[in-house]
Amino acid sequence: MTTIGDIGEFAFIDRIRRFAQERNDVLVGIGDDAAVVRCGGEMVVVTSDMAIEGVHFLLDRAAPKDIGWKVAAAGVSDIAAMGAAPKYIVLSIAAPPDCSLSTLDDVYAGIEELARGFETVIIGGDTTRSPQGIVIDVITIGETIGGVYATRSGARSGDLLLVTGHPGRSAAGRHAQEYGQNASELIRAHYRPVPRVAEGQWLAQHGSVHAMIDVSDGLAQDAGHLAEAAGLGIDIDSSEIPLADDLKEYRAVRNRSPIDFALYGGEDYELAFAADPVEIDKLCNDFGTEFELPITVIGSFSDHFKGLRIDGDPLHKCGYEHFRAGSD
Amino acid sequence: MTTIGDIGEFAFIDRIRRFAQERNDVLVGIGDDAAVVRCGGEMVVVTSDMAIEGVHFLLDRAAPKDIGWKVAAAGVSDIAAMGAAPKYIVLSIAAPPDCSLSTLDDVYAGIEELARGFETVIIGGDTTRSPQGIVIDVITIGETIGGVYATRSGARSGDLLLVTGHPGRSAAGRHAQEYGQNASELIRAHYRPVPRVAEGQWLAQHGSVHAMIDVSDGLAQDAGHLAEAAGLGIDIDSSEIPLADDLKEYRAVRNRSPIDFALYGGEDYELAFAADPVEIDKLCNDFGTEFELPITVIGSFSDHFKGLRIDGDPLHKCGYEHFRAGSD
Repeated sequence: MTTIGDIGEFAFIDRIRRFAQERNDVLVGIGDDAAVVRCGGEMVVVTSDMAIEGVHFLLDRAAPKDIGWKVAAAGVSDIAAMGAAPKYIVLSIAAPPDCSLSTLDDVYAGIEELARGFETVIIGGDTTRSPQGIVIDVITIGETIGGVYATRSGARSGDLLLVTGHPGRSAAGRHAQEYGQNASELIRAHYRPVPRVAEGQWLAQHGSVHAMIDVSDGLAQDAGHLAEAAGLGIDIDSSEIPLADDLKEYRAVRNRSPIDFALYGGEDYELAFAADPVEIDKLCNDFGTEFELPITVIGSFSDHFKGLRIDGDPLHKCGYEHFRAGSD
Repeated sequence: MTTIGDIGEFAFIDRIRRFAQERNDVLVGIGDDAAVVRCGGEMVVVTSDMAIEGVHFLLDRAAPKDIGWKVAAAGVSDIAAMGAAPKYIVLSIAAPPDCSLSTLDDVYAGIEELARGFETVIIGGDTTRSPQGIVIDVITIGETIGGVYATRSGARSGDLLLVTGHPGRSAAGRHAQEYGQNASELIRAHYRPVPRVAEGQWLAQHGSVHAMIDVSDGLAQDAGHLAEAAGLGIDIDSSEIPLADDLKEYRAVRNRSPIDFALYGGEDYELAFAADPVEIDKLCNDFGTEFELPITVIGSFSDHFKGLRIDGDPLHKCGYEHFRAGSD
């Protein structure tokens, strides 16, 4: 008997594509950060993100408000990666009968707090019993801005790979909490990631941006998705990855490098994107006048190979993957 | 410590309404069969339905295809109850690593089969690991027909309560399977309920229909929701409840009455609705020329009392409720 653990999450997603019929009102289907569909004359963007107690969070480690914030951030970030505007959240929650009301209230409050910051409201959902542990499924619905959206595919050979902000802080924060390190700002980055909604919209509207994804599984894996979707290879220059000062300092006390956290840690919810090299100076200048957040060139796309190279060495994907041993 | 089991599902849903901000692009929010929101110039209808192994289904009892069909039917039925047209399904599934691929394939196939019958396609979702048991969350997205939709509220004193088809067969089928009774058509009704999509659309367009709900928790409880939403009482005449022949015959071998299955059993996915008494003959005639399915008057709304009466006796709600002892 073949199990889902044998093939892993990404092979399984490929497998279920066959259940998705082609239809011309489905503009983006299975396999991107969010789906884009037509409803009447409008384009609607929708994604779902499930978080399960014991897999994605532990109640004895994370505050319920942070758990809510974080799963909502994952959904809003998926909408941001499409360059769309989040508007509504539908929420399915299952809990065991002995779950305290105050815990559930706080999960909702965390979701609502994240949502409110992006003018997004909870509109409904389902509530049911679970045999054990809390299950949260956040469905985030958004709109395109003027019918424009970005996808994972579309990078061209010669395009540059850029990333917003300073990736790796969330993974370092997780590590710091696990090992009892004093790094409160990194730990906060882990529990309270901020999706790049305005930045994603701006980038998707910019003609020189050809493809985009959010960094939820680590820069290596998510950049790899951009390369794969385009049928290209990607070279990352790890020395170009912009590291925050607190992440650099964190290196001093642990023997894992900050670059490892940026490449292989997930849940930063920064955006990685492919941009035309000819227009890169204008893109960076224009972005800089609009946002304080930096964007940084960290690699390039090539049609001479497939897959991912880091500093010239081919790399097997080793970011976050569900179902696989050691992942969570 | 107060738990969710202490207050029950419906009190919890009331409680979480406070996390939903009022906004004029949310036409129907928490507490109806589905939410209705504006996306640009369009109205989008959305609902989520979660099914959990060990609570909603058992793999040693139900075929995975039936499990998929049934949870998708719940979502499509919610859209039908709003009088809208289902179009898209987003699917979050969690499974333990040792879950067989063929089981998951069949769950997907069952969802896809139900969806296909209503021109609805799977457009994406999330796939993740669960510590034990399969978790399925089906998010169903639909469109209104010409901006028209029905809600649970809107019944007026003097309105008649009607129901489509022959409720109670699903609950009897569940009972038959549990007790090893030979009633294959009832068992099929339990595992393969058919949402009343065309009927719901037709009814919502008919000016004489004031409120509608799908019968997912039993006629008593769901009719009670219509009464509560209108601030009215409702009288059901149990002798008027239309019983299918196979349900009547099923009575012969068990000591539960067919009326009990219709009143307190759930998951028929028939529609219950409030209609203007003055136009009732025309409504029934018009419906009869369009559909083979019967619609039947089974009660009436009144402003002389609140809550539910069956054959004149006040009744406490006793349909299906999550979290409560004895519910599932």
